[in-house]
Amino acid sequence: MLYQKKNPHGGSADKRIVLDFSANVNPLGPPESVVSAAAGALLHMDRYPDPCCSELTKAIAEAEGLSESFVLCGNGASELIYAFCRAEEPETALIPVPAFSEYEQALRACDANVSFFETLEEDGFTAGPGIIDAIKKERPDVLFLCSPSNPAGTLLEESLANDILHACEDLGTRVLLDECFIDLSDGASLARLVNDHPCLVVLKAFTKSWGMAGLRLGYCLSSDPDLLTGMSDAIQPWNVSGPAQAAGTAALKEQGYLEKTMELIREERSRLFKALEELGLRPVPSSANFILFRGPSDLSERLIPFGIAVRDCSNYRGLGPGWYRTAVRLAEENGRLINALTDIIKGSTNG
Amino acid sequence: MLYQKKNPHGGSADKRIVLDFSANVNPLGPPESVVSAAAGALLHMDRYPDPCCSELTKAIAEAEGLSESFVLCGNGASELIYAFCRAEEPETALIPVPAFSEYEQALRACDANVSFFETLEEDGFTAGPGIIDAIKKERPDVLFLCSPSNPAGTLLEESLANDILHACEDLGTRVLLDECFIDLSDGASLARLVNDHPCLVVLKAFTKSWGMAGLRLGYCLSSDPDLLTGMSDAIQPWNVSGPAQAAGTAALKEQGYLEKTMELIREERSRLFKALEELGLRPVPSSANFILFRGPSDLSERLIPFGIAVRDCSNYRGLGPGWYRTAVRLAEENGRLINALTDIIKGSTNG
Repeated sequence: MLYQKKNPHGGSADKRIVLDFSANVNPLGPPESVVSAAAGALLHMDRYPDPCCSELTKAIAEAEGLSESFVLCGNGASELIYAFCRAEEPETALIPVPAFSEYEQALRACDANVSFFETLEEDGFTAGPGIIDAIKKERPDVLFLCSPSNPAGTLLEESLANDILHACEDLGTRVLLDECFIDLSDGASLARLVNDHPCLVVLKAFTKSWGMAGLRLGYCLSSDPDLLTGMSDAIQPWNVSGPAQAAGTAALKEQGYLEKTMELIREERSRLFKALEELGLRPVPSSANFILFRGPSDLSERLIPFGIAVRDCSNYRGLGPGWYRTAVRLAEENGRLINALTDIIKGSTNG
Repeated sequence: MLYQKKNPHGGSADKRIVLDFSANVNPLGPPESVVSAAAGALLHMDRYPDPCCSELTKAIAEAEGLSESFVLCGNGASELIYAFCRAEEPETALIPVPAFSEYEQALRACDANVSFFETLEEDGFTAGPGIIDAIKKERPDVLFLCSPSNPAGTLLEESLANDILHACEDLGTRVLLDECFIDLSDGASLARLVNDHPCLVVLKAFTKSWGMAGLRLGYCLSSDPDLLTGMSDAIQPWNVSGPAQAAGTAALKEQGYLEKTMELIREERSRLFKALEELGLRPVPSSANFILFRGPSDLSERLIPFGIAVRDCSNYRGLGPGWYRTAVRLAEENGRLINALTDIIKGSTNG
């Protein structure tokens, strides 16, 4: 038995998979400057990394237009989800579902009671104004939000975010807004709202935006120094590696890379969506770099002979067998996915 | 204000420092094969790391002669100290001091009551048989041990370790034995004792042995699956980066590197010890790759103009102002430290 085997997420380790649509990282991979910066950091890998992430924190604060004191860096955004739960020690939590299962895992690890707000397929799995009633009814210590949501890819409207924050402020509810996919979506970050809302923590990741999943780097933003101190106290001092710090700092100097990525994603998402629709696979309209859709319950297995992995979403709360998520990748790669799906669904290859 | 600024340990970020004796890493740095393996992993840095650390875990189990199911990998050994405390949720803990302050930090982060067993200078800061009485009196939920101890560099005798384990087994006390410096010491690991003692967790690090502090990699060994599952549940799934997994796996294939390192350390430690003694700096006999000694209370500042950092140990429990720890490094580097100390103590340079 191997530990750390829990939580099968996207990102396939199956040797038969040559084309992985199960993890939603930037299809262009990391910019060259980012790889170089990480490689440069290997030259002094025998030195401890800066526990303060000083240079990186400065670069993030500048990029976000927020105070350096609002920034806390993590070994991937996931580490910060766990640290948030440790710092808050919530007795109760509310999560709109379907959602990234690590929220629940991290909450269970600190013995919180977790309630779920089920969003519906007909609403594109968006939490509408009904979430406010649920918050008032449940009065949770913490609320998790995700924009764009995962796996549906829908954005949280700013007006609804404001209504939620006001309701939560009244109730003393802390809000974690996960924006890990915001850079690869049509939406704009709501991070500046932390200025006016100490109850809000915004979570972001370099992992997806900059193709750095293997290096691990995320951060969170909050105007509440007590929360960030509490989170920092729950984490070891040297949590962010030297290469990750160097790579992140280099990424923020890359002008235009995310715009170029989004041009590709918009075009390819539209093409992939249309193909899924034509195959009767009922895609959910997405603003992100991935698409949720339905298919036969054995679709994952039937894609393996093609060397292709999509994310089987049957284990998501609020979904079930027959739900899948695919990343939007390069044109040629998406073409291979479409051909494979066509072959499976129609029983014949398509070009 | 920057978060993650807590706990000033060894490893200086001061730009004036060109020779850092404050962190105790392998003075030879990482083997070339380890740097190459990490660099190779950067080529697919956009992929998530294997959450199971499968290949690395297999290599560790083989190197330790223990079952793969006994191994849990961490983002540096420090992450595992925090995860251990989260999993155990101890109400009470006992730490022989002086000791690495992260034990206490991690225990405080989960609200444990911490007691200390003071070891004495005349005993070389070794926990002798008196620790058994302290364990029986305090009946702690967890006990932290460190061999070689940090900052004193003394080894835990196997016979005493066995006596401690038997006493702890009777009381239901869990023991974390930190062997992060064992590879760079004269001692042999007691890791195989986990086979007979489910109450024992042994902690090890690649950080120091293989010059990988900037990459972060540690692991722990235990025969208690419940403990390892609990620790794993307290950590995000992708805690160990791709480059760290690759580097660790490569390190374990490096035959003879640690032996070569230890030849150097034994020779240089003896030379450094003699020089410190001759300067009246009262070094504590060490079996490790560092030496604890006494000096004027402003010694750290007076070394800065030489571009040299040692670890000021005044903030260690059980020590105080005037205590310092220096790493044992390369001959030429140690020579520069000796010259600087001679200059400061005798007011004249020595060659």
